[in-house]
Amino acid sequence: MPTTPAYAATSATSPLAPFTIERREPRAGEVQIDILYCGVCHSDIHQARDEWGGSIFPMVPGHEIVGRVARLGDAAQRFKVGDIVGVGCFVDSCRACAHCRAGEEQFCDVGMVATYNSRERDSGAPTYGGYSTRITVDEKYVLRIPDGIPLERAAPLLCAGITTYSPLRRFGVKAGDEVAVVGLGGLGHMAVKFAVAMGAQVTVLSTSENKRADALALGAHHFAATRDTDTFKQLAGRFDFIVDSVSAPHDYNAYLGLLKVDGTMILLGVPVEPSPVAAGALIMRRRRLAGSLIGGIRETQEMLDFCAEHGIASDVEVIAIDQINTAYDRMLKGDVHYRFVIDSASFGQAG
Amino acid sequence: MPTTPAYAATSATSPLAPFTIERREPRAGEVQIDILYCGVCHSDIHQARDEWGGSIFPMVPGHEIVGRVARLGDAAQRFKVGDIVGVGCFVDSCRACAHCRAGEEQFCDVGMVATYNSRERDSGAPTYGGYSTRITVDEKYVLRIPDGIPLERAAPLLCAGITTYSPLRRFGVKAGDEVAVVGLGGLGHMAVKFAVAMGAQVTVLSTSENKRADALALGAHHFAATRDTDTFKQLAGRFDFIVDSVSAPHDYNAYLGLLKVDGTMILLGVPVEPSPVAAGALIMRRRRLAGSLIGGIRETQEMLDFCAEHGIASDVEVIAIDQINTAYDRMLKGDVHYRFVIDSASFGQAG
Repeated sequence: MPTTPAYAATSATSPLAPFTIERREPRAGEVQIDILYCGVCHSDIHQARDEWGGSIFPMVPGHEIVGRVARLGDAAQRFKVGDIVGVGCFVDSCRACAHCRAGEEQFCDVGMVATYNSRERDSGAPTYGGYSTRITVDEKYVLRIPDGIPLERAAPLLCAGITTYSPLRRFGVKAGDEVAVVGLGGLGHMAVKFAVAMGAQVTVLSTSENKRADALALGAHHFAATRDTDTFKQLAGRFDFIVDSVSAPHDYNAYLGLLKVDGTMILLGVPVEPSPVAAGALIMRRRRLAGSLIGGIRETQEMLDFCAEHGIASDVEVIAIDQINTAYDRMLKGDVHYRFVIDSASFGQAG
Repeated sequence: MPTTPAYAATSATSPLAPFTIERREPRAGEVQIDILYCGVCHSDIHQARDEWGGSIFPMVPGHEIVGRVARLGDAAQRFKVGDIVGVGCFVDSCRACAHCRAGEEQFCDVGMVATYNSRERDSGAPTYGGYSTRITVDEKYVLRIPDGIPLERAAPLLCAGITTYSPLRRFGVKAGDEVAVVGLGGLGHMAVKFAVAMGAQVTVLSTSENKRADALALGAHHFAATRDTDTFKQLAGRFDFIVDSVSAPHDYNAYLGLLKVDGTMILLGVPVEPSPVAAGALIMRRRRLAGSLIGGIRETQEMLDFCAEHGIASDVEVIAIDQINTAYDRMLKGDVHYRFVIDSASFGQAG
């Protein structure tokens, strides 16, 4: 069992630092993957700093993994050596509950095994994520990366991509719908691309004017600054859907007022404190406030295929692993267009 | 234009008292209705006491009206003299906007003309409601009360009935679904009856044990007291739908935790203050929090026909009009099973 280089947080207050892990030999039905790129998700920071509680240290974050199949376990047959594949937010689930059987493993009754900061179902060993050069995963939880997507730009699709694609599909965004995207970060920029590809009229709502050019460059049809209170008057009752990717505190009721009758506001960000919701804002126009959580393996594959078909990929800044702590600092300031992606070659020679 | 006896609030702090109004002769397309019964809705109290602001005084409340067609205006052809009919929460709307054309007049872009505490579209004259003996309404806004529903028990269907029927239908309650009804008042008791008739497994959630027998007598299959905090553990993830009829402050997040994946909590009550909603409660199980507002004329007729078909009617306490102030006091204490209904014969001889 060869050692594998990684970067880990050893406590909630430690910066990430070089660390060595062991990856198991692929067992029956498993594949071992040489990691090429791994996206850096905001949830990596939350968990590395134990902001959600219950973090397992040392922690190797990373759940937006793209790599190449290196070895096959017995009976592994969905991939062959050399295939380009992806691993997202989870690597296992109970496989028996109604949600797993329905291909919605993210809602597994027993609880999905997250790609990192979780425990293997059999051994209880901690799972280690993609800030590393190699990972071993059951092939049922591995995605096929279709041809045509630059690999560094494919990595964030495994979390930011499916997190935005799934609700747009599930809540029924269709051509001609008016869709607002609140916040233009890793999630928001993908929501814009998907909604545009689905034929919607897309408006980006962001605090200040300085994201207008970026929003339009991403394909959005309109932009409005939410610091301008006139925005909420002018756009009242305008949207069929609002995709809200913001985790900072903000007034849900103001945004609910922008929905049409039967409109849906989809929450993807989790503010630390609950946000007050006025029942009247929902009742008077029969509006919905909904949440959505990543997507299952089948839907994630559908999303990747949709990306290849529509020429969609994440906009990324590729970094070396030793830039990870600086990247975290920049992300906390919103200073990234729109996702950092670690080039795994920067680990040097894997052990 | 004969004078008509009514009861009115002359200010936000006045009890209701005898008052005389004029009802217009039926114009083209209108019918004049001799009122037989009028339900007493909580919103009558809110508006008579100007708790929502903007009340128009003197105010004759009442929007759960059942009566008999007495006179027809020219070209009125949907009803004949003697027909038993109903009038609900609105008596007019713009008739031109997309919502009106879709039969969802409650969402009229111009604003529906409420049955009382509103203004006629043409004259701007205040509308007066059903605490009276007679009303004149465009036949397009009049419902047909099907045979077989006791008339005093039909009146509350015009508001409490459609308010609960519409969301159960629209959000797709079907046989076998697990439905919780929060609060067992005028709205809640109708939600129980409808959900049972639609084949759902119905659980009433109420603060204390003392409503258990009532809930089961209404047809609910289960009851749980929400003062018992174990309830929220035992019923976690149980329901496809929660119909929340409570206007008092309560913790939405606790109830959201009772929903399955993809479950919907439907708000019908409007607490004075917004209620904190934890995004995570929606996101982790892809739940929805929704509102619903009465229903359109077409759907209200559908609801009435559904009631006749399924033997559904409101449970009521019939009162004389001079008991109305006492009835308000009792309603504020939750002391009514489940709706007061004014017998219009108690006005004595109409003028």
